[in-house]
This record gives sequence, C-alpha cells and structure tokens, in this order.
Amino acid sequence: MKKNLFLFFSILAFISCNQKQEKTIISTSLTSEEKIDSTKIKTVFNSALTEGKSYEWLRDLTQNIGGRLSGSPEAQKAVEWGEKIMKEVGLDSVWLQPVMVPHWVRGEKEIATYTTNGVQKNVPVCALGFSISTPKEGVLAEVIEVKSLDEARALGDKMKGKIVFFNRPFDNTLINTFRAYGGCVGQRVRGAAVCGQFGAKGVIVRSMTNSVDDFPHTGTMSYGNLPKDKYIPAAAISSKAANILSDDLQKNPNLKFYFKQNCKTLPDAPSFNVVGEIKGSETPENIFVVGGHLDSWDLGEGAHDDGTGVVQSLEVAYLFKKNNIKPKNTLRVVFFMNEENGTRGAKKYAELAKLNKENHIGGLESDAGGHTPRGFSIDANSDNTKLVQSWKKLLSPYGLHDLDKGGSGADISPLKGENVTLVGYRPDSQRYFDYHHTSRDTFDKVNKRELELGSASMASIIYLMDKYLYSNTPVKP
Amino acid sequence: MKKNLFLFFSILAFISCNQKQEKTIISTSLTSEEKIDSTKIKTVFNSALTEGKSYEWLRDLTQNIGGRLSGSPEAQKAVEWGEKIMKEVGLDSVWLQPVMVPHWVRGEKEIATYTTNGVQKNVPVCALGFSISTPKEGVLAEVIEVKSLDEARALGDKMKGKIVFFNRPFDNTLINTFRAYGGCVGQRVRGAAVCGQFGAKGVIVRSMTNSVDDFPHTGTMSYGNLPKDKYIPAAAISSKAANILSDDLQKNPNLKFYFKQNCKTLPDAPSFNVVGEIKGSETPENIFVVGGHLDSWDLGEGAHDDGTGVVQSLEVAYLFKKNNIKPKNTLRVVFFMNEENGTRGAKKYAELAKLNKENHIGGLESDAGGHTPRGFSIDANSDNTKLVQSWKKLLSPYGLHDLDKGGSGADISPLKGENVTLVGYRPDSQRYFDYHHTSRDTFDKVNKRELELGSASMASIIYLMDKYLYSNTPVKP
Repeated sequence: MKKNLFLFFSILAFISCNQKQEKTIISTSLTSEEKIDSTKIKTVFNSALTEGKSYEWLRDLTQNIGGRLSGSPEAQKAVEWGEKIMKEVGLDSVWLQPVMVPHWVRGEKEIATYTTNGVQKNVPVCALGFSISTPKEGVLAEVIEVKSLDEARALGDKMKGKIVFFNRPFDNTLINTFRAYGGCVGQRVRGAAVCGQFGAKGVIVRSMTNSVDDFPHTGTMSYGNLPKDKYIPAAAISSKAANILSDDLQKNPNLKFYFKQNCKTLPDAPSFNVVGEIKGSETPENIFVVGGHLDSWDLGEGAHDDGTGVVQSLEVAYLFKKNNIKPKNTLRVVFFMNEENGTRGAKKYAELAKLNKENHIGGLESDAGGHTPRGFSIDANSDNTKLVQSWKKLLSPYGLHDLDKGGSGADISPLKGENVTLVGYRPDSQRYFDYHHTSRDTFDKVNKRELELGSASMASIIYLMDKYLYSNTPVKP
Repeated sequence: MKKNLFLFFSILAFISCNQKQEKTIISTSLTSEEKIDSTKIKTVFNSALTEGKSYEWLRDLTQNIGGRLSGSPEAQKAVEWGEKIMKEVGLDSVWLQPVMVPHWVRGEKEIATYTTNGVQKNVPVCALGFSISTPKEGVLAEVIEVKSLDEARALGDKMKGKIVFFNRPFDNTLINTFRAYGGCVGQRVRGAAVCGQFGAKGVIVRSMTNSVDDFPHTGTMSYGNLPKDKYIPAAAISSKAANILSDDLQKNPNLKFYFKQNCKTLPDAPSFNVVGEIKGSETPENIFVVGGHLDSWDLGEGAHDDGTGVVQSLEVAYLFKKNNIKPKNTLRVVFFMNEENGTRGAKKYAELAKLNKENHIGGLESDAGGHTPRGFSIDANSDNTKLVQSWKKLLSPYGLHDLDKGGSGADISPLKGENVTLVGYRPDSQRYFDYHHTSRDTFDKVNKRELELGSASMASIIYLMDKYLYSNTPVKP
C-alpha cells in the first residue's frame, strides 16, 4: 500500500510542479477602470475558448474550398462563403467591394530533374507566381549557383544561356523567422528580373524556409522593368534538393538541370473584398478595421496563410456580439482579396475609404499564421504607441508580451496616417515557414486553442482600442 | 511595368510589416557584466540553432526505440542509448545508477463497445497504468456517469455492480493547460480506489485532454489503501467517445457498456538512471542537475513526454562544451527512469545524493513538452527567486517572459532544500495535451527549432545559475 500511496503523491508532485498558478487576472494593482477591462478581456477569452466558431469556419474554408488564388473559381467560392458567414454572424451590414485582380494560373504540375554521376535525381519544384512558362520542351542548361542578387549581378554575361540557382538559406540564428524570410526573399522576387537582363535561361530559387525538407515553396516574383522579350521562367526547389544540388555542383560543375512549367498570366479578373460591420454606438463615423486575406496560394489549403487571419477577424465581431460588447466606433471586418500577388484588394479598400471620406482611426491585421499568441506590433504615432504599450499588464496574462513598434500588415498599411493606429497580430513564428506557400499549409496544422486564443487576443486589443483611442482621436468635423 | 513595380513594393510591405525588428540583444541599458552574459547567451542560441544535436538524438530515441515504459525491453535499450550518447558528447564521466522499478504491462489491445438503439458503437479505449485486467470475458455492466470523485463517493452502494464513468472535462478557459489537467486528473488517479470500495465493477475515465478527439490517453492510477480483493479495472476512453456516451446515456440510461483489458503488474524490474557530468572548474563539489525522464508511456513514442526533455538536457552540456563554457560548479545531466509510474529514479537519485553527501545547489527539469519557449518556473528561496527573476532582460529577447514562482519538476523536486534553486522549463502548453500519453506523442509532432530554442533556453539559465548562484551559496565545509 505504501508503494501505491507514494505513487499517488508523486503524481500530485508532477501536477503541482507543472501547474504554474494562473496569474491573477484581476490584480489589486489595477485601477478600477483597468479592473473592468480585465474582466471584459477574461470574458472574451472564456467565450473564444468555449464557444468560438473560428475553428469550424476554418475547416469549412480550407477543406471544402481549399487553395484560392486570385482569379480562380475557388477564390470566387471563398468570396461567396465569406459573405454568407458574415451574414450568419449577424453583422449590421455586409457588402462586396468589386476589384480587378491579377489572374495567374499554374497549369500542369511542374517537373525538374538532372543527372549526375549516372544517377537521375528528381527535384521537388514549383513555378513562382507571375513567372512565365518554360518553352514546351522545358529548359535544359548548366547551372551557376549564387547566394545573392549582388553575386548574380556580378556574374553579368557569364550567366548567358545558364540557369542561375539562388541558394541563400534562411539565417536560422534569427529568433523571429520573418526576419530570416526578409533576408532571403529578394532572390525569389527579383532573381528573374536580374538574370533575365543578362540572358540567363531561367532561375531556380531555394525555398523560403527554416527547415530542410522536400516541399517547394511558391510565392510571388516580379520582372520589374525587364522588357517582355527578356522574361525567363522562375521556379522554387525544395530546401533539401537545394542542398543536394549544391553538393552535386561541387563535384560536377557541368551538370545540366532540366525544368518544365506551364504557368501563365491571364487578363485581370473581377473579384471582391468582403466587408461587414457593426455600427458604432457613439461615433459610428469613426472606423476600426480588422482583417486578413481571403486569397491564398494554390498548393495547399491556405490555412495558416491566411485562413486563420480571416476567421479570427470575423471572430472578433462574433465575440463582441456574443458578449454584448457594443463598440463605440464602427467595427469593420474585411476579408481582403489578392494579398498574395498584388494586394489589389488592400489598395481598392484604401482608395474607396478615401473616396467616401471615411474616417479610419485604427486597424488590426492577422497575417502571420495561427500559432500561439505572442503579442502585437504597433504602427502608430508616439502617444498612441505608448498608450497601446500601457495595456501590457492587461494582455500579458494571456502570453501577449510583445508590444513593440513595427509594421502592421500589407492589407491595412495603405490606411496609414498620423492619427491612425495600426497593429499587427504577432503569433509565435517558429513553425510558420514550415508551411508557408506549400502543399503543407493545411487545416490539420492549425491547433484549435491557438487559433481561438488568437481571436480572443485580437478582440481584446480591439476592445481596448475602441475604448481608449476613441477619446484620443479628433472627431470628424 | 508599373503594375509589376507596385507588386514588388507590396511584397516589401508585407515583409517589413511582419518583420518585427529583432530586439537589441546587447542593449545599452545592460551593465558591462550583463553584456558579457548577453553575448554568451546569444552564442548559445546561435549554436543550438545551427549545430544542435537534439533533433537527431530525438529521432533516434523515438523512432528507433519508441515507447519505453519502465521495466520494458525498450526502456533497457533507452538506458544503453543514453549511456552511449552521453559518452559521445564527451562528458567527463558517465555512469548508471541501478534502481528497481515497477513493471506493469498492457498486454493485448483493449476493446470497449456498447449498443444503443440497435447501433453498436466501438469505443477507443486503453487501460490505465497499474490497473488490473478485466476478467477474461471482460466486464459488461450498466453505467453511472459522474463528474467528480465527490459525486462518485456520494453514490455509495448505488454503484454496486455498475461501471462508473468519470466524465469531468478539462476547463478550457484556463490558459495554462497544466492547470486544467490538475483539475481533472484526480478522477483518473483515484477513481478506481473510490469506486472499488463500493463494489463497482469497473471505472472508465474521460481522457485528459483539451480537445475532442479519438485518442485515449493512458496514465497512472492507484488503488491507494483498497484491499486487493476490491481492485477493479480502470480504463480511459477518448474524449469524443465520452461525449457520445454521455449523450447516449441521456437517451438510454440502462445501456450496458463492455470493456476488456489484459494488463498486469509483474514483479519490480531492475533498471537505471543514466548520469553524466562535466566537472566544475572551481567548486566541483557543488552540483547543478539538469534532466528529463527517459521512460515513457507505451502507446506512442514518448516524444514530447519526455524525449524532448532528455535530449534538451544533454544538449545543455553539449552547448557548454561546444562553446567552451566551463562551469564553475559541476554540471550533471540525468536521464531519470520511471517518472511516469513511480518516480523511483528520482527517489533513488536523491537518496544516493544524500548518502554520498553531495552538495546540490540547483536543478533544472524539462518535462512539459518540447514546444516554443515561454519561460521557467522557480522553486527557490526568496533571494534566489528574485535573483533568477532579475535575469528577465537577458532572457526575454528569446521569448522567455514567464519567470514565476512555482514547481520545478517531479524528478528534481526530491532535491528541494532551503539553499537549492530548482527551476522547471516552461514551454508553451497549448498543444501538449493533444499528445500527452497517447499514440500521437510521436517524433513528427516536435518542431526542430522549438526543440533547439528550448535547449538554448535551458543552457542559458544554467549558465546564469552557475555564474551567479555560485557566489551566493555557502561552500561545503
């Protein structure tokens, strides 16, 4: 018996060891107003975690519609889906904003291969968005490996007739993986523009990821000012294939790489931003936007990029309604179209806001994945930045410690202005580039609680912005 | 062309929006000593993220050995594996500490089923650790559902001949999921002891998880002081099955539930803690322990519980050696045996430490999964707690914001003492109970960067403890 009792106490020890006390949410060090806020925020979190809708919405969007590149039939279905669920949530009004979007199609699945030392190696490959197709017979050429655009430029005419292989890896020592992305993505975006100029036959680019795996990452590219007759095809290969190719080139610098892709850019297509709002109870002419982007790349299901941002944005409004929180200012939810290859939706939204003389006082964007919450980055004037940072004690019990100055998001940044407070939702970034723009960006990679905690985090900061930025902002004359 | 240029700038906007600036690691607000520490910590993180070994060690342990319950052949293989890799890392000495461990075996796969409204439902089920088997023909009985041990006790003799169904779900509003676990696990541990007393035929327990899914979670239970002839079989059913059964019982309170399991407890078996150390350069008689547990439940591969803790603990020593950090005190790595069902390894380690008059000045345990780092909980006297908390500015650039008072871990807590500073590594807890004690606790659920960030976090706090607790601790006479 003693043995069993000892066991029991050991288990209790395990639990108590791991069971860090939930931090006191309603602390005595809070002012009475802050206690009200703290209670409201707790209500919002409880609601998201027990009656949230975002996970099932995301399942529907990702698994029943799937990848939804601008101009595709799936993007159109996503627009209809977006309008329908906004109405189901019971927003005061829901409408579509027409916008013409680029329409690039991948076509038949790409292939890439090379033979070295008598061994044929098949390479996981995908075309980059906006790339032209290869000739029908594909491209076969020797390869020159470089690590940067500057290194490529320095090659000049030496690249003529060759395939240029951009193989700069992520700097894995950067804790924020978006920074590593920023350090590499130039080769994807500008590689073909630089190399087309010197008569290269094509570019292949190492996939944008921290990991070494078999999944090619697509993403947009641009030919910039290059004359059309100098356009060359651009593709991404998996990071593991990039390592192997690099090794093989060391041993056999004259090996010939082959790839074939069938993509093309069609004429611009009609599409829509999906917009809905809860009218403000006191100053409805002042507007807060919360949004994510509805389009996604075609290879996966657009789950973390950016299905999660879409459903979390709507869940902010859902949580307000469910918990009878009436915003003083108008709370507008926007599912932006075409963030991935054009940001035409964002541009259109800002253009119409200006045209209609709308007074946007703030915005929140979720487009960094649906992982566990870490905080927000703040793009605002100095007073409002300090104000947002003063909410740290209210937000940190939920793991929201990061409240740094920084960007907000590609879709809301066109709304930027001296008195506009923009924030970007910042979940943990460690896993994001395992999935980003690949066939792995699927529903099963999203954790329900992490998603819901994100919705609640976003609703909490919108609650605070609505309450405190309100009195802080000049009312429209 | 304008269109393409606009595209390019949009991409740059996306990047800069998401690319929160890496916080200045070496801030001007640090003292010169803190700058040295900050540089050292950065070195440790860079090293873990670029030349870490933990991920490949974990692959080997989980995929080549797999689940390794105390007393099993796999646990013995894990001991041999542990000794081998400790030697490979080049610790100054490596040895095994013999310890007798409980030896429970699951036997043939369990089954559970019931029929309601003419429909037969198969229930995902597993025996709880230390449970007795059912009779060969299984147990078939009516079911009484309860939500707590108190509710069960109140039933008294009414449960005679019945199966008691403990169906208390996790409180999902608790942000720290370990707290939700703490609120429910009593029914798993003590359910059979309470109900055996009143002549129930068996207990089935809702799995310990935040999610609603098809995976039964095993875990240890105890019959406490119950006489042996009153022992009854105890099993866990999946959370989804628990919800369905609960619904079915509403409609058909007399339905009969059937389950059959084939587990038994064999005589105690010989096993080992695996221990290795780097001798201290100044006061080698003072010891810091860093550890995780080598045993695991049998259903999965013991990846997050606690393969990650094992490989991270060894990686602390690896990072010290690789970066030529010589601890002043002895740094001892321990792979504890039998945390899951007995903590005999922990008890033996503490017993031998006392017997050998070893002076343990601190310890660090990793047994809360291998997810993204959040902080440490501190079990120490008030001065040392404040000292550890004063390192926040050095640790927070790596996402280590949580430095609260709390437990450390089941394996190191027997070393507790007035001048012993124990800390528990606290990664993000949101996904942990999706996998804990199930067949899903496999290698593929662990993210390489998250694992490595954990190793580096642990090495960083051990570096600080070694440096600053050192002068703080009375030297052994």
